[in-house]
Amino acid sequence: MDRFKKGLETMKDYVADDTLKKMVESDALADIAPDLRKMIIEFAYGDIYSREGLGKKKRALVVITAVVTQGAAPQTKTHITRGLHAGLTPKEIVEALLQLVPYIGFPRVQNALTIAQEIFREQKLSVK
Amino acid sequence: MDRFKKGLETMKDYVADDTLKKMVESDALADIAPDLRKMIIEFAYGDIYSREGLGKKKRALVVITAVVTQGAAPQTKTHITRGLHAGLTPKEIVEALLQLVPYIGFPRVQNALTIAQEIFREQKLSVK
Amino acid sequence: MDRFKKGLETMKDYVADDTLKKMVESDALADIAPDLRKMIIEFAYGDIYSREGLGKKKRALVVITAVVTQGAAPQTKTHITRGLHAGLTPKEIVEALLQLVPYIGFPRVQNALTIAQEIFREQKLSVK
Amino acid sequence: MDRFKKGLETMKDYVADDTLKKMVESDALADIAPDLRKMIIEFAYGDIYSREGLGKKKRALVVITAVVTQGAAPQTKTHITRGLHAGLTPKEIVEALLQLVPYIGFPRVQNALTIAQEIFREQKLSVK
Amino acid sequence: MDRFKKGLETMKDYVADDTLKKMVESDALADIAPDLRKMIIEFAYGDIYSREGLGKKKRALVVITAVVTQGAAPQTKTHITRGLHAGLTPKEIVEALLQLVPYIGFPRVQNALTIAQEIFREQKLSVK
Amino acid sequence: MDRFKKGLETMKDYVADDTLKKMVESDALADIAPDLRKMIIEFAYGDIYSREGLGKKKRALVVITAVVTQGAAPQTKTHITRGLHAGLTPKEIVEALLQLVPYIGFPRVQNALTIAQEIFREQKLSVK
Repeated sequence: MDRFKKGLETMKDYVADDTLKKMVESDALADIAPDLRKMIIEFAYGDIYSREGLGKKKRALVVITAVVTQGAAPQTKTHITRGLHAGLTPKEIVEALLQLVPYIGFPRVQNALTIAQEIFREQKLSVK
Repeated sequence: MDRFKKGLETMKDYVADDTLKKMVESDALADIAPDLRKMIIEFAYGDIYSREGLGKKKRALVVITAVVTQGAAPQTKTHITRGLHAGLTPKEIVEALLQLVPYIGFPRVQNALTIAQEIFREQKLSVK
Repeated sequence: MDRFKKGLETMKDYVADDTLKKMVESDALADIAPDLRKMIIEFAYGDIYSREGLGKKKRALVVITAVVTQGAAPQTKTHITRGLHAGLTPKEIVEALLQLVPYIGFPRVQNALTIAQEIFREQKLSVK
Repeated sequence: MDRFKKGLETMKDYVADDTLKKMVESDALADIAPDLRKMIIEFAYGDIYSREGLGKKKRALVVITAVVTQGAAPQTKTHITRGLHAGLTPKEIVEALLQLVPYIGFPRVQNALTIAQEIFREQKLSVK
Repeated sequence: MDRFKKGLETMKDYVADDTLKKMVESDALADIAPDLRKMIIEFAYGDIYSREGLGKKKRALVVITAVVTQGAAPQTKTHITRGLHAGLTPKEIVEALLQLVPYIGFPRVQNALTIAQEIFREQKLSVK
Repeated sequence: MDRFKKGLETMKDYVADDTLKKMVESDALADIAPDLRKMIIEFAYGDIYSREGLGKKKRALVVITAVVTQGAAPQTKTHITRGLHAGLTPKEIVEALLQLVPYIGFPRVQNALTIAQEIFREQKLSVK
């Protein structure tokens, strides 16, 4: 299987079908950097996420942690959403964010929890 | 149970008995900031690591990811060691680090893998 | 005194009474992570801010510097506001931000000054 | 030539005449930190950008890379705009951002490309 | 007074006479970037540290906080040393570092305390 | 041409023949993460560095800037060395680092200049 197909296949574990369909049909950066989406699909998903030896929920958790630690807001929204799709529960996501407090401090955790809250409300999910 | 005891109890999931014994008997920063160790045990372990809703291997993974993303070398060594004690396999740790490449770039991943390699060699562990 | 009470007591040095009252009555993250506010009050304020050996204005300055250096915008607003309440003058805050230029560069200082300006205007404070 | 004049002179390589005129006539932070603009003109432009030994396009590229790596959004907009004025092509800017993917990861590159796209559209520039 | 002289004069508040004498007589980077030292003296000390409106101990505290938050180890050593010379007590420095725990997390604070401890030992200072 | 070959071919612009030969013959991380080197060659060099639209000296400059801004010491050494091989002069590298002072502050620039100095001495290069 080529890397692009493998990437798209792997993305199904993290992205809902309709969202994925939209991503394939319309690329927001198509006019200036069409290769970025290709790289994300081929390299991030085709080469990396698809590897064996670590479960998809743990991979999602690692990526959420990285973008929260960097303070990257748009990606925090994207990857919490993908983590939920991969099977992480809202509770696990909240606990992972609280687990970060002693290591990255309150500010970035608080910002990430605010983003998580918005996603949970949109998806009518509760933390229990 | 008080927070300090609860913290020490929780640390047993992440730290080998003899290392924990040494930590309790001798605190490297005792002469200038004895409260730091107390805070780590009470707050990080007693209040946070001990929470329910996320397994200990996932907590360890979240912490490893945070310190690697920050580029904090001494803590990368500490928390990979604790992650192994918590039950993460060398393979899972390597995969988690490779999963970070698309999100934090090669440099910090490469530095963390070099630290992981050193720990695996000391503990005669192989990645498979 | 228990840690929560001590934390609330300490917060009075940094937060106006009506703001504190609102914080206690309504917690924005109550539905997903009620413990975060508890940790901030008990750990950040009850355990840390309340310590002896460093004045409250200097503590506020340290925290403002940390969040500005991290580029954490919402916390920059929060902690400049708290620094003013703790007794820092607008002049001292502006000087502290300019003092950062040689160490963190113009971009984050400029962003923080823009936030400070907004707060000073809301509170009708001038820098002199 | 004094440092302020030299700074303004150097800025002409990076900033359009009408924008520069506006910057000189009205300083957004004049009421709280009038010295910041003075420092940027005298130190950043008068002392540093004006140095010999590195071309203006390369200087612009270095600054764009620094602010993108820091994740500083307002400055990313400012310095991509200045880079275009200094003679970098939209293509060179896009390529520089893609070149960052292996070193800082997708998130900050994606955010920077979105900002670049907005600037290119405003200026009716295409990437070819 | 010219900026270089003003910078050297201001540095006396932060640097011991014999250290300053050595810095002036021998510049470690003289063969590749002699202007860096000049910029530090003229810009950092002559233009910024010398400003009015914030005391020298507070300026030192702001700079220590910035370099600790960045995780810049050599500068942490330099600026804790300068802070002591400016009149900060070992106790104030330790308290400032502990105050950072809730905002930047344990790892960078622990690394900074280890550096502080080394300086205090060299200077035979105790924390009380 | 496959991505690995293309990557190796591209690396020749940045890495001396004997160093490249050693890299191919012996991979320091071979026992725990043999795929990392493969990814660096295929993705970083095969997919990215090999792209058109930005010259190799500018690509090297962008990468040097990114790792210096992150404060990643081992990679600063690697990429200054590769930048010299790609044709950047010692002068251009020093100027690029000084250009960063207003954007990332003195500390990381000073650390990077110290690393550059060491490389220039090893290669008996002078800055002029």
